[in-house]
Amino acid sequence: VDPRCAGKSQRLNRFQSRLRELGIDAAILLHSRDLYYFAGTAQPCVLLVTAGESLLFVRRALDFVLAETWLDRAQVIDGGGFQDVLAALKAFGPAGGRLGLELDALPAELFLKLTAIFAGYRPVDVSGEIARQRMRKDSEEIACIEEACRIMNAGHRRVLEVLREGVTELELAAEVECAQRKAGHEGILAMRNPDFYISRGPLASGENLLRVSGFSNTITGVGLSAAVPAGPSRRRIGTGELVVVDIPTCHKGYHCDETRTYVAGRAREEAADLFGALREISDSILSSLSAGRSCAELFEVAAASAESLGVAEYFLGVEPRRADFIGHGIGLDANEPPILRKGSAFRLETDFVLTVEVHLSRPGCGAVKLEDVVRVREDGCEPLSITERELFETG
Amino acid sequence: VDPRCAGKSQRLNRFQSRLRELGIDAAILLHSRDLYYFAGTAQPCVLLVTAGESLLFVRRALDFVLAETWLDRAQVIDGGGFQDVLAALKAFGPAGGRLGLELDALPAELFLKLTAIFAGYRPVDVSGEIARQRMRKDSEEIACIEEACRIMNAGHRRVLEVLREGVTELELAAEVECAQRKAGHEGILAMRNPDFYISRGPLASGENLLRVSGFSNTITGVGLSAAVPAGPSRRRIGTGELVVVDIPTCHKGYHCDETRTYVAGRAREEAADLFGALREISDSILSSLSAGRSCAELFEVAAASAESLGVAEYFLGVEPRRADFIGHGIGLDANEPPILRKGSAFRLETDFVLTVEVHLSRPGCGAVKLEDVVRVREDGCEPLSITERELFETG
Repeated sequence: VDPRCAGKSQRLNRFQSRLRELGIDAAILLHSRDLYYFAGTAQPCVLLVTAGESLLFVRRALDFVLAETWLDRAQVIDGGGFQDVLAALKAFGPAGGRLGLELDALPAELFLKLTAIFAGYRPVDVSGEIARQRMRKDSEEIACIEEACRIMNAGHRRVLEVLREGVTELELAAEVECAQRKAGHEGILAMRNPDFYISRGPLASGENLLRVSGFSNTITGVGLSAAVPAGPSRRRIGTGELVVVDIPTCHKGYHCDETRTYVAGRAREEAADLFGALREISDSILSSLSAGRSCAELFEVAAASAESLGVAEYFLGVEPRRADFIGHGIGLDANEPPILRKGSAFRLETDFVLTVEVHLSRPGCGAVKLEDVVRVREDGCEPLSITERELFETG
Repeated sequence: VDPRCAGKSQRLNRFQSRLRELGIDAAILLHSRDLYYFAGTAQPCVLLVTAGESLLFVRRALDFVLAETWLDRAQVIDGGGFQDVLAALKAFGPAGGRLGLELDALPAELFLKLTAIFAGYRPVDVSGEIARQRMRKDSEEIACIEEACRIMNAGHRRVLEVLREGVTELELAAEVECAQRKAGHEGILAMRNPDFYISRGPLASGENLLRVSGFSNTITGVGLSAAVPAGPSRRRIGTGELVVVDIPTCHKGYHCDETRTYVAGRAREEAADLFGALREISDSILSSLSAGRSCAELFEVAAASAESLGVAEYFLGVEPRRADFIGHGIGLDANEPPILRKGSAFRLETDFVLTVEVHLSRPGCGAVKLEDVVRVREDGCEPLSITERELFETG
């Protein structure tokens, strides 16, 4: 094993240990983000994992796979037919038992095909277990997220060059996306949800700040048409208006999701005040965040801060679209577990990487949002986002 | 019914007729592209279709849905719980029977949940039936694809401004994407396959033209990392090298997928000759294409043309990654049925919208590709692509 890959190659060992603990006899993984995590390739493959063996069946592009994977050559099989996988499963694992599948991502049609082919095995979901393992990031993953944060910063700096009265949301977004791309953004926004269309990321100004499209209870933008109803629109941005820019980036598969709020020109006093309260709420979360804290505790810290600052009414949006979370895991998917959700007893651990996101929506004034990427430490949290946490004015 | 919506509102009626013909008692649709097609909204909804009734259950963003849909107000229900859908199914349909679902797109986890809730009904796949109906485009859909083709053209024109010796594939792609976006590209590349990551579209130059990543047997590019192994890389483009640009666009949910080949500087003679043969092959398909022709016939026309021009060896790539198709349907998904595949007896019909795509890959020389969007007519085909079909030189 290449010594640079020692950390990565432990991922499969840890997964095998968990399968044994859970009494799952084998797993068949197909989703590209999981293949990339466990085997280093996103090419079309089938990864068979038994208690003692892992085999990568390559459906296409063997040359790419061999250059990409850290598995031993003997673990890589040219050809990805499910009958071959079945034969290998019977050779390296039990003749029957519990078979782990990615039920959150596997299309039903393929699930039915697999249950017919692997008829002697009982399918069980291992999506949650994989998500659980992926929560804790190793040093290589964190370095990728840091680079995604640098790419993100290039996009935010571009806003300051382009934002002015009369520019449209779409023109602004196009320039941000171009700057991100040139800085190395891989151009995807990975979501485990297989039916997720939001343009390249939310951007909204003026009255669009309070129009919340269906995909999430946050600031979404309204998009260009009903087909992709989120992200920038053709609305022209006026002087003194707030603009929220939340277009994620991706480096080596790892995302950054960081939101900043801008003003075209100078901020009105009530907008500046609203942002001041927002930053205090965000700071209250960041200073409370460490390994061992539960999601619910952090949510309550934020809610109490909003209450004490007199902005509880605007906290996380307006009913019925008020959010009940203040952040989420981030990595190979832009939104991963854990969700920092109200009431969630789930406790954070060292080396989780999370977003911390808060917005305040005040009808008649607009909305402001801050979202940062942080690494959970034993005694606190370390920001991975590098963009200044201020209300940016362009005039 | 709003008279402008008459054509669109017929879509559900036609689907109901087909369900009756197929002996399917009802269908529950969840996928956003199908919701948008049948109900005009991509917001999170559940569409229940029985023999005589269609109801849209809105999970979130009722305000958006009411502004977007052409269904009557009485057909739109605030709230999308599956128990409510079940109650409505029992009220408007039979108490049991065959229940159509989108099994190609529905995640297995949700499929299992639905089969438990709708336990009295037997699930059957209606994905193919929906795809079949969506093949034939109405005038409004064709107008959207025409606009996507105009947006596409803005990207291709940008290549001519940016391409020069020393520019990287990524820099070139970023400028194309920015020009497309400013021209109105909605920024998505919809694929029915739920695990499809290819950056924003293929772009490749020089030796990358012959490195075929796993997602499709075409010119893919190699991407920035193994996580997203297709699309532009950081390779610098050299003088006289071929560059293939194949970055799709989207307008009101409808795509254009059009490929052009460029040279940084002046084309070498063998590249110009290769492109000349390519265009002849493409022309042979376009002049043979009309309603009533089978996919296999068109494939054989192309193969015979390649043979007669002495380029059969380079036709559709190099083994083992040679393609066996020369085009595909296009619409709300960038790749839809039908596939113009070798051996496919499927016959084309009037108002199908297709791409016609051919590439020639000649080791040592590079690769050239042409892809156009056309509308099938009774007696021929009408190009919807507007970009010139030439080998573009920048010097």
